[in-house]
Amino acid sequence: MALIPRLDIAALDAQLVDPLTKGLPFNAPALRLGDIGAQGWNVLEGDVPMPVAVIRQARVEANSAWMAAFTQGNGLVIAPHGKTTMAPYLFDLQIADGAWAITVATVQQMQVCRHFGVCRVLMANQPIGQQAVNACFAALADREFELYCLVDGEEGLRQLAEGAGRAQPPAGNPLRVLVEVGFPGGRTGARTPETALALARKIAATEGLALAGFECFEGLLPAPEAVDELLDVVADLTRQAIAEGLLPSSGPVIISAGGSAFFDRVGERFNAHDFPAPVLRVLRSGCYLTHDCMGYAAAFERICQQTRLTLPPGGLVPALEVWAQVQSVPEARRALLSMGKRDVGFDAGLPIPQYWYRPGSAMEEPQPIPPGYKTAALNDQHCHLELPQGSELQVGDLVGFGIGHPCTTFDRWSLLLAVDEDYNVLKAVKTFF
Amino acid sequence: MALIPRLDIAALDAQLVDPLTKGLPFNAPALRLGDIGAQGWNVLEGDVPMPVAVIRQARVEANSAWMAAFTQGNGLVIAPHGKTTMAPYLFDLQIADGAWAITVATVQQMQVCRHFGVCRVLMANQPIGQQAVNACFAALADREFELYCLVDGEEGLRQLAEGAGRAQPPAGNPLRVLVEVGFPGGRTGARTPETALALARKIAATEGLALAGFECFEGLLPAPEAVDELLDVVADLTRQAIAEGLLPSSGPVIISAGGSAFFDRVGERFNAHDFPAPVLRVLRSGCYLTHDCMGYAAAFERICQQTRLTLPPGGLVPALEVWAQVQSVPEARRALLSMGKRDVGFDAGLPIPQYWYRPGSAMEEPQPIPPGYKTAALNDQHCHLELPQGSELQVGDLVGFGIGHPCTTFDRWSLLLAVDEDYNVLKAVKTFF
Repeated sequence: MALIPRLDIAALDAQLVDPLTKGLPFNAPALRLGDIGAQGWNVLEGDVPMPVAVIRQARVEANSAWMAAFTQGNGLVIAPHGKTTMAPYLFDLQIADGAWAITVATVQQMQVCRHFGVCRVLMANQPIGQQAVNACFAALADREFELYCLVDGEEGLRQLAEGAGRAQPPAGNPLRVLVEVGFPGGRTGARTPETALALARKIAATEGLALAGFECFEGLLPAPEAVDELLDVVADLTRQAIAEGLLPSSGPVIISAGGSAFFDRVGERFNAHDFPAPVLRVLRSGCYLTHDCMGYAAAFERICQQTRLTLPPGGLVPALEVWAQVQSVPEARRALLSMGKRDVGFDAGLPIPQYWYRPGSAMEEPQPIPPGYKTAALNDQHCHLELPQGSELQVGDLVGFGIGHPCTTFDRWSLLLAVDEDYNVLKAVKTFF
Repeated sequence: MALIPRLDIAALDAQLVDPLTKGLPFNAPALRLGDIGAQGWNVLEGDVPMPVAVIRQARVEANSAWMAAFTQGNGLVIAPHGKTTMAPYLFDLQIADGAWAITVATVQQMQVCRHFGVCRVLMANQPIGQQAVNACFAALADREFELYCLVDGEEGLRQLAEGAGRAQPPAGNPLRVLVEVGFPGGRTGARTPETALALARKIAATEGLALAGFECFEGLLPAPEAVDELLDVVADLTRQAIAEGLLPSSGPVIISAGGSAFFDRVGERFNAHDFPAPVLRVLRSGCYLTHDCMGYAAAFERICQQTRLTLPPGGLVPALEVWAQVQSVPEARRALLSMGKRDVGFDAGLPIPQYWYRPGSAMEEPQPIPPGYKTAALNDQHCHLELPQGSELQVGDLVGFGIGHPCTTFDRWSLLLAVDEDYNVLKAVKTFF
C-alpha cells in the first residue's frame, strides 16, 4: 500500500484572510492564514469575538493517531471522509498519520483536494452529468492523481463510459470504479448482488475504466446485524469478481465501507473473509477526527464494549466546541447566547453546554458547567439556554458547547480556530465548503 | 426620513472568485464576480454543476418592489434584515427600493455592511463583550455612519456606557439605542414595561448614547393576538418616553418590530397609536425578499385574508430555489439526488420538489413536477426523493426544489446564481456569512 505525500500547506498558509470572515477579531488587519497563530490570541480572554468554533488541537491529533493505530492494528486502511471538515490542514494531519486516500462526496470537494495536493481521492458517489464526468476524467490527465468513484446502475456506467470515450484517460491511469452495493429502502447502491456483479462485469469490459472493487455505505442501517449482512455481501462479491478475473492485477483490490458509527463491524466482517488476491480494506470514516459528544460518542461506547478487534489505548475524544457569550438573562431560568443555527449543527441534537468561563474573573480556566443547564432552542443567531434554579450565569459569561455530528458544525464556518489546552489560538483552520 | 445611498457594487464586482467555490463550473477560470453574468451560463443546460442555489431575479425584484409599495402605502419604513441573505448585491436592491437601513444580528454582519457602504445599520441585538462594544463605537468615528442597537438589561447598558466612556463617540454621532421589550418565555427583551422604561431613562442620561426608541421581536409568538399586545406595549412605552422628554429632538424616534410573519399586525397596531412627536415605524423583515413556499407562504396567505392595511397588487412570490440532479433511481419508488443538508435548509420543513427538467430532451422548459413526489430525507450530501408509482424520473434529470426559511438556505452558499426566467445566469450573488 503506497502512502500518499503530504499537502502543500505553504500555499494554504499564504492565503490572505478576508477580514470580514466570521470568527476573526473585528479589528484584525489583513492577515495570511499562516500568520494567525502568531497573533497571541486567546479565545477566553476576549481576543476573538463570540461565537467561535474551536478545534482542540491536542485532541484532534490524538484522535487521528488513535484511528491510525486502530486501522494499522486491525488490517484496515483509512480514506477519511473529507466532506466532514473540508479542511486541507486536517487532511494533511490525516495523511501524515497514514491515510491511504481522502474520500469526498462531490466533484467540488475533489477539486479542493487536488488543489492542495491530495494525490489519491475516493469519490464515494457516482458522478452524473457531463460537468461532473468530464471533471473526473480531466483530473486523470495528471498521472500522479488516482481517482476512485462509485457506480450503482446502468445509466451511471453509461455516462462514465461515454466520458471515458470523450476524454481517453492516459494508459495506466484509468478511472477506478467501485460497484456500490445498497439495500432496500437505503440510499444509492445496487439492490441485489446479481445486479452488482453484472455491473462489475460491464465495468471490467469498458475502456478507460478499471474495476477496483466493491463498497457500501452502511451508516443508515439501524443495527450491527444488518450492517454485518451488507458487509458480507460486499466481501462475497469481491471474492467472486476476483475469481472471475474482473479485477486487473495492476491496482489494488478495494473493499470499502463508511465506518463512522460501525467501524468495528467493518473490521470484523471484512477480516472474516479470505480472498484469492491481496485486498485493501478501506474505512471511510470522517467523524472520528473531531468525534462528538452525542451520537458518535454513543456509537464509540458500543464499539468499546462489543468489539473483538484490538483497540489501541486511549480512545476518541470530542475535539470540536462552539463557544458563545451570554447576551441576556431576562428570566431567572433562561439565558440567551450569541450562537444560533448559523453557528452550530442541530440535526443530531441541540448543542450541549459543557464549560463555563467568566472573563476577567478569578476563574483560572473553564469550569465544567454545573448540572441543570440545557439548550432549549436555537434561532438563526440565538441560543435559548435553560438555567437551573439559583444559576449564577451572568451577561458576558462564556459557555462552551459540545456538538453532535461534526459535519453540520464544520460547514457553518469558513474559519475555525485550533487551540491548545489553554485556548491559545494555534492556527486558523480554513474550510472549503 | 433620509434615504441612504446605494452601495459600492463596483468593489464587489471586482472581487476575484475562488474557482474552488461550490456552485461554479469545475473548469471555470479565475473570474471576477462581475464577470460571471457575461459567461453565458444556463443552469438547465449543464453549464453549472449540481446542486446549485438559484435566485430568480425578476421575482426578487418584484418582491422588493412589492414590499416598498406596501410599506410606503401604510406609513411604515423597512430596515430589511440583512442576516437572511448577507448579500450586498441584494442589500443594494433593497436600498434602491427605499430601505431606511439594513438590519443585522451581529457585529461581523455590521462590518460587512460598512465595508460595502451601508451607512445606516440597525443591529437588532445587544452588543456584549469589549470586542463587540468597541467595534460598535469604532464604527461611529465615521460620522456618515449611523448605528442603532438594542439594550434589554442593566448589564448590557453598563457595557455600552463603559464603551462610550472608552471611545468617546464624536458629538452628533452617538450610539443610538432602542430598548428591547420582550415577553415571558421569549427571547431577549425586558420582561416588563416598568423595567423597559427604567432602562430608557438611564440610556437617555448616559453620555455617548442616545435613546432612539423601543422595539420588539414578535416572531416567536404563536398568534396575532399576542403579537398585538406586545406591539401595543412598545407603542405605549414610546409615547410615555416622548412625554417624559427622554428622546432627543435631534434624531428620529423609532418603533420597530421583526415583521416577517406578522408585518400586517405591526402596521396595524403601530398605526393605531398617536404620538406627540414624529415616529418612524420600522419593519425589519428579511425573508420577504425571496419569500418561501412553506411557513412564510402560509403567513402571507393569512395576511392577505385578514389585514385591513392596503396591499399593493401582486404579492410575494418564492424566488429562491435549489436545483439538484438525479444520481440514482435504485428502486421504483425512490431516487437519490445530489443535494443535502449542506445545500438547503431543513429547519422549517424539507425542500419541496416543484420543477422537473431533462437536459438534452425535447422539454423546452422546466415542467411542474407531477403529484406524488416528496422529499423523504436529507443526508449531508444526498436527498432521498419518494416517487409516485410509474414515475418517469431518470438518472440525470434535474429537479428544482422550493425551500422554507430562506435564512438557512442562503447560509449554505457563498455564491448563489441569479437567473432570468429561462435560467440564464445573470450574475453571481456572493454572501458573507
